[in-house]
Amino acid sequence: MSATTFFTSVQDQLHFVEQRIREQVGDEQHPGLRSALEHLLSAGGKRIRPTLGLLVGNMLGAPEEKLITLGASVELLHTATLVHDDLIDGALLRRGIPTLNAGWSPAATVLTGDFLFARAAKLAAETDYLPLMKLFSETLATIVNGELTQMFSAHGVIDRNNYYNRIYAKTASLFEMSALAAAMVGTEDEIVRGAMKTFGYEVGMAFQIVDDILDFTGDQTKVGKPIGSDLLNGLVTLPAIYFAESNRLDEDVLSLPAGGWKDTARVQRLVYAIRQSDAIEQAMDEARGAISRALGALEESPASPEKDALEDLAKFIVDRKI
Amino acid sequence: MSATTFFTSVQDQLHFVEQRIREQVGDEQHPGLRSALEHLLSAGGKRIRPTLGLLVGNMLGAPEEKLITLGASVELLHTATLVHDDLIDGALLRRGIPTLNAGWSPAATVLTGDFLFARAAKLAAETDYLPLMKLFSETLATIVNGELTQMFSAHGVIDRNNYYNRIYAKTASLFEMSALAAAMVGTEDEIVRGAMKTFGYEVGMAFQIVDDILDFTGDQTKVGKPIGSDLLNGLVTLPAIYFAESNRLDEDVLSLPAGGWKDTARVQRLVYAIRQSDAIEQAMDEARGAISRALGALEESPASPEKDALEDLAKFIVDRKI
Repeated sequence: MSATTFFTSVQDQLHFVEQRIREQVGDEQHPGLRSALEHLLSAGGKRIRPTLGLLVGNMLGAPEEKLITLGASVELLHTATLVHDDLIDGALLRRGIPTLNAGWSPAATVLTGDFLFARAAKLAAETDYLPLMKLFSETLATIVNGELTQMFSAHGVIDRNNYYNRIYAKTASLFEMSALAAAMVGTEDEIVRGAMKTFGYEVGMAFQIVDDILDFTGDQTKVGKPIGSDLLNGLVTLPAIYFAESNRLDEDVLSLPAGGWKDTARVQRLVYAIRQSDAIEQAMDEARGAISRALGALEESPASPEKDALEDLAKFIVDRKI
Repeated sequence: MSATTFFTSVQDQLHFVEQRIREQVGDEQHPGLRSALEHLLSAGGKRIRPTLGLLVGNMLGAPEEKLITLGASVELLHTATLVHDDLIDGALLRRGIPTLNAGWSPAATVLTGDFLFARAAKLAAETDYLPLMKLFSETLATIVNGELTQMFSAHGVIDRNNYYNRIYAKTASLFEMSALAAAMVGTEDEIVRGAMKTFGYEVGMAFQIVDDILDFTGDQTKVGKPIGSDLLNGLVTLPAIYFAESNRLDEDVLSLPAGGWKDTARVQRLVYAIRQSDAIEQAMDEARGAISRALGALEESPASPEKDALEDLAKFIVDRKI
């Protein structure tokens, strides 16, 4: 199986997920909102979160209809957080495509995000399964708390725990929810549910670590934002943390907590140094470690094409280039 | 019973609602967020929405614990929409108290609203009753759609249907939800549930009509915003609609759809004319009509102190001065 065959194996179901998502943009909506939503949805990424849920659910024999509803809900929740996130960051580009915020008023952006939250919650309720609604609302709370913490925390701080908490809230929580929710509608077995939750968590953590590495090493035109953008925003991610740990007396490193991240020339120099250092490979090893743990969580599952596909999905996370 | 004794009759339960709300602002939150939330919650109004739900639920013998959770959820959802609303309007004062938006960055305001949404959804899920989660997510969708429609619609338009849809989305939907949700945990009887839904709907419509009247007639220092502020924002509410219907050739009325609402001197003249006209009383009659229908929906309920209190609540809506 090639690296992305796992997408192909759920292609038909992903098509239905897409359809469920688009149904939320009903005809009764205002044309301006409709076109904005279509822009957002067509700018969408690989639908990795729904794919994860579909594969886990298929492996456990969960009802397809619920998995599709779930997938649409997860993807809308993800899109809603991106919309508000872009407003918060003042980001004008995401994945190289202009964000809503670039062309819209902040008011319209806030409401479009709220609209997507509302539809995500509605879809979650349509699964007719209360524990899933609870999981949904807890995950939403985790994501928002993470963003608030990030906003209120001092910037330029080099702190591993802070970093892990942040990427859990920002990314891994939704991967975890997607896998766990699919497992919840697929089996009553708490051990299997726990294993799928771990799988989602570890894959999500690895996904964000790789994203953070690509912020240093990626092709700027593909990533759609300037190299080192996290550091330029005062966010010290894993490669910078490893570099700082090996270069405690580096003047640029020392300057960060005191606001050195606001100095563009300094950050550019630091980004260059990090790219040349072992820090990138150390961070990559950590992502690979998370993927190993994810694969470990799959071990007890009986052999099946879906299990193979989940293994491929996990490996793809650390192999992707954008 | 005096006009506001109905609040007293649920005072102890409202105290628990308050406690549930404050529990959502946990110790683990950042101090900045905590003080902002405390500011928001202490600036709170009369808790009329939870009061409505408590009285309906008590009348029907619903479990107190669920009513308290519901009340906290409804009030947090209400507060969340106010926070985003203030950002959208750029409002600096609400109820005469500085809004979050006046002192906070838009980013912090967006996230604080999202945080309140998340907690409201979490509380709704804690009622452990799926139909209620659905009602919650549908109401959220209605509120957000209403705001989006308002944003995208032409301003200065004199249109009754448009007005009724807007005040339903903005206000009556949440009153309706509060009464219906309490009925849903109190009885299986669909007729009673329908009656309580109607009660909430009519009370909510009347509440917003009176609010819109007070925007013309209220004491500016108590209302906390300039007289005629709706019209100054291009929103044509019921008193202005009645005035326009009786004064079709009035130059200021004719100017509105073409942007006359942007002319402050013109709007001030129009507000003065509306205050002196029958339009205020006609709008008030319409609010009284809604309250009559609300009382009609109560008629079949057996006599009880809670029924009396609900009648008082309904009458209070049209008697209040701020």
